[in-house]
Amino acid sequence: MKTSCAPNLYLALTHYPVNNKNGNIIASAVTNLDLHDISRAAKTYGARAFYVITPLTDQKELAEKIVSHWTQGIGAAYNPARRDALELIRVSDSLEQTLEHIRSQEDMMPKTVVTCARNCEGSISFSRLREMLQSGDPFLLIFGTAWGLASGVISGADYILEPVKGNTDYNHLSVRSAASVILDRLTAGA
Amino acid sequence: MKTSCAPNLYLALTHYPVNNKNGNIIASAVTNLDLHDISRAAKTYGARAFYVITPLTDQKELAEKIVSHWTQGIGAAYNPARRDALELIRVSDSLEQTLEHIRSQEDMMPKTVVTCARNCEGSISFSRLREMLQSGDPFLLIFGTAWGLASGVISGADYILEPVKGNTDYNHLSVRSAASVILDRLTAGA
Repeated sequence: MKTSCAPNLYLALTHYPVNNKNGNIIASAVTNLDLHDISRAAKTYGARAFYVITPLTDQKELAEKIVSHWTQGIGAAYNPARRDALELIRVSDSLEQTLEHIRSQEDMMPKTVVTCARNCEGSISFSRLREMLQSGDPFLLIFGTAWGLASGVISGADYILEPVKGNTDYNHLSVRSAASVILDRLTAGA
Repeated sequence: MKTSCAPNLYLALTHYPVNNKNGNIIASAVTNLDLHDISRAAKTYGARAFYVITPLTDQKELAEKIVSHWTQGIGAAYNPARRDALELIRVSDSLEQTLEHIRSQEDMMPKTVVTCARNCEGSISFSRLREMLQSGDPFLLIFGTAWGLASGVISGADYILEPVKGNTDYNHLSVRSAASVILDRLTAGA
């Protein structure tokens, strides 16, 4: 039986720099349902904010348009529960800007934790991160899109979280599913 | 620490009969990413098959078109991992047809388990269902769309699974997130 805790956890979904299928670094497109599903999971598991990172002007505008529809537009009246979730979204230019924004609120830099579908050397377990979160210090959990976070983001992080394993060798969850399962494993009571 | 098990588990995503926002029974539209995300989770957690239930001809055609693109069309060559997941999908007219299809393969009727975001009287816990799955008998886990499964589907099921709780009062996960978390809680090693 896991114990319940309310960690000081932030989420980031990175659209740049990420890998494409051939291992080249690209900026990926913002996906509407990523914003909905991950913000709903963030709200369910008590995350402080959900940063959507993209340097592209049109993609930032798209993300802001989706968020404002559900937080201030017709969507907010139509579905207040959806509003409560999407209010957690902050559109951000870069990981650096995201860290600075959290630092300005917390008065300390968050520890960064990258998530990765494959095994990475030196990764930490879910139970270890769950323990660390009980300190109350801020942590930023970083998710990739497309074919995953660029290697520089992974090597620059404070921690790498072990991959989500099911009970097969198949490890191709969507980022929406992976984010939900990771939040459940890190924060929920069993 | 949870123990690993490979249960005899089937999934169904129901588009009819489900509730709309006003509590009326409708047939909802098939959502492309439901098919992708839930089939990927099904493959990750070793489910036997994923039934997409809709009685509407155009919606069955849409679902079949998505599946065939990724299992036989260009998508299969482009992304074999996606093919492996979407191969689990069976488009089905009704819950009755789904149960009959499973029975024809298992030589026994599966036990039905409905999932529900709200608390329902007589619901069973994740750990209880996890125990029952270790019998090796077939179970069908039934998910709703729109504003949830019609009351007749819930009252007709063998079991109601307790809702996924995070560590807040917010209980509005997407069905994609909920299915992933439920599979993780029921089947994964910790």
